[in-house]
Amino acid sequence: MKTLLLAAAAAVLTAASPAAAADLGANAAALRDKALSDTTAWNVLESLTTEVGGRQVGSAAMTRAKDWGVAKLQSLGFENVHVEPFVTGAWLRGEESAEVVVPYPHKLAILGLGNSTPTPAGGLEGEIVLYRSYAAFLAAPPEAAKGKIVVVTGRMVRAQDGSGYGAINAQRTRGPAEAAKRGAVAYLLRSLSTDDTRLPHTGTAAPGGIPAAALSTVDAELLEHMADRGQPIRIRLNLQSTYNPKAQAWNVVGELKGREKPDEVLVVGGHLDSWDPGTGAIDDGSGVAIATAAAKLAASAHPRRTIRVVMWGSEEQGGSGEAYGAAHKAESPNLVVAGESDLGAGHIWSLSVPKNSLSHPAMKAFTAAITPLKVIVTPTAPRFGGSDIEGLMTNGVPFVDFNQDASRYFDLHHSADDTLDKVDPAELAQNVAVWTAFLYSVADSDIDFRALAAQESK
Amino acid sequence: MKTLLLAAAAAVLTAASPAAAADLGANAAALRDKALSDTTAWNVLESLTTEVGGRQVGSAAMTRAKDWGVAKLQSLGFENVHVEPFVTGAWLRGEESAEVVVPYPHKLAILGLGNSTPTPAGGLEGEIVLYRSYAAFLAAPPEAAKGKIVVVTGRMVRAQDGSGYGAINAQRTRGPAEAAKRGAVAYLLRSLSTDDTRLPHTGTAAPGGIPAAALSTVDAELLEHMADRGQPIRIRLNLQSTYNPKAQAWNVVGELKGREKPDEVLVVGGHLDSWDPGTGAIDDGSGVAIATAAAKLAASAHPRRTIRVVMWGSEEQGGSGEAYGAAHKAESPNLVVAGESDLGAGHIWSLSVPKNSLSHPAMKAFTAAITPLKVIVTPTAPRFGGSDIEGLMTNGVPFVDFNQDASRYFDLHHSADDTLDKVDPAELAQNVAVWTAFLYSVADSDIDFRALAAQESK
Repeated sequence: MKTLLLAAAAAVLTAASPAAAADLGANAAALRDKALSDTTAWNVLESLTTEVGGRQVGSAAMTRAKDWGVAKLQSLGFENVHVEPFVTGAWLRGEESAEVVVPYPHKLAILGLGNSTPTPAGGLEGEIVLYRSYAAFLAAPPEAAKGKIVVVTGRMVRAQDGSGYGAINAQRTRGPAEAAKRGAVAYLLRSLSTDDTRLPHTGTAAPGGIPAAALSTVDAELLEHMADRGQPIRIRLNLQSTYNPKAQAWNVVGELKGREKPDEVLVVGGHLDSWDPGTGAIDDGSGVAIATAAAKLAASAHPRRTIRVVMWGSEEQGGSGEAYGAAHKAESPNLVVAGESDLGAGHIWSLSVPKNSLSHPAMKAFTAAITPLKVIVTPTAPRFGGSDIEGLMTNGVPFVDFNQDASRYFDLHHSADDTLDKVDPAELAQNVAVWTAFLYSVADSDIDFRALAAQESK
Repeated sequence: MKTLLLAAAAAVLTAASPAAAADLGANAAALRDKALSDTTAWNVLESLTTEVGGRQVGSAAMTRAKDWGVAKLQSLGFENVHVEPFVTGAWLRGEESAEVVVPYPHKLAILGLGNSTPTPAGGLEGEIVLYRSYAAFLAAPPEAAKGKIVVVTGRMVRAQDGSGYGAINAQRTRGPAEAAKRGAVAYLLRSLSTDDTRLPHTGTAAPGGIPAAALSTVDAELLEHMADRGQPIRIRLNLQSTYNPKAQAWNVVGELKGREKPDEVLVVGGHLDSWDPGTGAIDDGSGVAIATAAAKLAASAHPRRTIRVVMWGSEEQGGSGEAYGAAHKAESPNLVVAGESDLGAGHIWSLSVPKNSLSHPAMKAFTAAITPLKVIVTPTAPRFGGSDIEGLMTNGVPFVDFNQDASRYFDLHHSADDTLDKVDPAELAQNVAVWTAFLYSVADSDIDFRALAAQESK
């Protein structure tokens, strides 16, 4: 029935708004081209990484980032710019160092993991027991870890779809707690990274009760070579940190109102918080920049519905997606679709849209417009749209999943190398073009993803 | 006359030793193939970087490196293994840090330069004046630098022949002294590097009287973006270091005696010292490993002359080449040829041998043997053979120049990324094969480079 109503509505409005199918396609294509040469995303990203830098939830930098977000959205002409405060747990890095002390002094490049417990002041020292994979660690006799510093050096596989990260994620997220269970005094892992630079990559672990840090891939390999000698290796580790269970955080919001249906809202964004070692250019300054620029470009064609940009305030340590979902539960039926850009600045190479929607004129206009952008439109519906829209997904809001090329992402992610110089402006612009075409095509149509999804598969 | 004598000698010895031309060529080719699958160089390099690590002249690690060198040469069957002590100046790094304090706190990745004067304890703070090239700094009004921290961010060009380094070298070597002359309080440069990782690259500067450090290329670019705002930028810099004008150092020596003319000696080596941030795998553990392995392989065919390996003990801060030349002045007429491998582990892509020698049967055997190794044999004589053989060059010892592909060298050189994992075993083996064929061809012949060079050009 809903479909019939939509068809009727489309017939009535053919020459007016929402744009007729032909206009929708032409407008989407024109906006795509405009996006490819638009510098808004680059400028937003350059501004954030230059004027704010790294911005960990709970830090003074995050407060500055929130103020930056408000000012940036206002300066770009967004309406209803505001912050939505919430409270979340925040682990903050203190003084950190590690070195081999036996067989000889050698400084190790490390970064403590989010949720790591601190070492005693001045550090701790222990003999290591080294495993070359997480599976080997789990399979080893538990007593081998007792009183030791467990080192696990499994290697992450590079993949366009980023699947190497999920495959080895337990080495970081679950390793510290498993080592704690076995009586280890600390846990070190080879960074979940595809690079070969001497920079470690941080990230969170499940709370585990022992100090835990990531080694650079280079240092992990050195320890393997040392371990080949069969002689004892002792490491001194100093990890200071603090944990604030009730840190103040904010989702920063701005809207560009639809001309006819301002209460029907598309939600798109990235996360404003980052890890501290870099300047958060790829994770996730790029997502913030892409969403902001695409919203602005799509809205420049004055579509029917409202486009809302959210700069989520605590993705790395969690909290912003849940807070957003909870705060917008009542509004969720009016949220047309949600999406998050959070895999850096690599080009979008495949995407999926809600079930049964591909044959709708709006999605036909969208997919036709992005043909030159070399994107595979997958026929299956998305399973996950991003950590920060999980709350909305739970509320039943339709969502999309735009997959960026992650081949290089894990060279940089969560490390000191997550910086502006790593972003290719042309790749960034391709993202903006895809999102612009999508936001416009949906915002200037009557597409109802819920109704389409409720139909039998076509 | 010497040529006639050589020809006569060759005629006499055709069927015996030195090897006849045909044998020389066949033996050189066989040794080349042996070298390509030999693991000695890799094993030596793995041992040095794993068991000793970084080894700066004047440090405890350098003492361990010297002991390692003696033990390694002995274990490989070298004869007359000994150390030749000398005294040299040694700058040693202490505590170091730098951060932007205005407009907001941002940690900078830096490394103090060799010969930098220390800051006052606890550091110094100053406003920066930033120039985007060394030429722009020199051309600026001198008073602009007065009381400031001078930052120069010229970029190094990547080149197979490494020529980008020489082109920009003054930015590091002369910059601090020029900034001091203009009344600056400190000097920071963009690292002389072709990489884009957040790791700075150290090196020496001419003594300049002010604290001086290298920024990672990433941090240099961030400062450029900050400077674009036209607002004051203040940096806090803490560089602690010590300088020992009379540090104990050693050249480590081993020989493989010739079977007929043991007093005619080929000298080949690399330098054992390294900068401290990495493990000195490419600069110059690779040279040490290549020279050691090539000498061992060439001597396995029992050539006529002696092959001597020298692990020079203070290249980075200077001293070992001068010391070696001075100590071996009297012996220099007996030194047939000298060579140093000191440009990492990239393959040899061109080489030059002493004037007029290419038509000699020994060089014909050599150049024929390396045909499959994709090396351009240049027709002109070498102009420079390496810092550590400068003293020998001054003494009139003939020398060679084997040019390695430096395309990636300056991504790693003098940084924490100078580590074993960056070395490609196949590239390392190509170097060993070229040096092996050369050492064998010269050692098992009567070639007299001095006599050939004294002839009119052919």
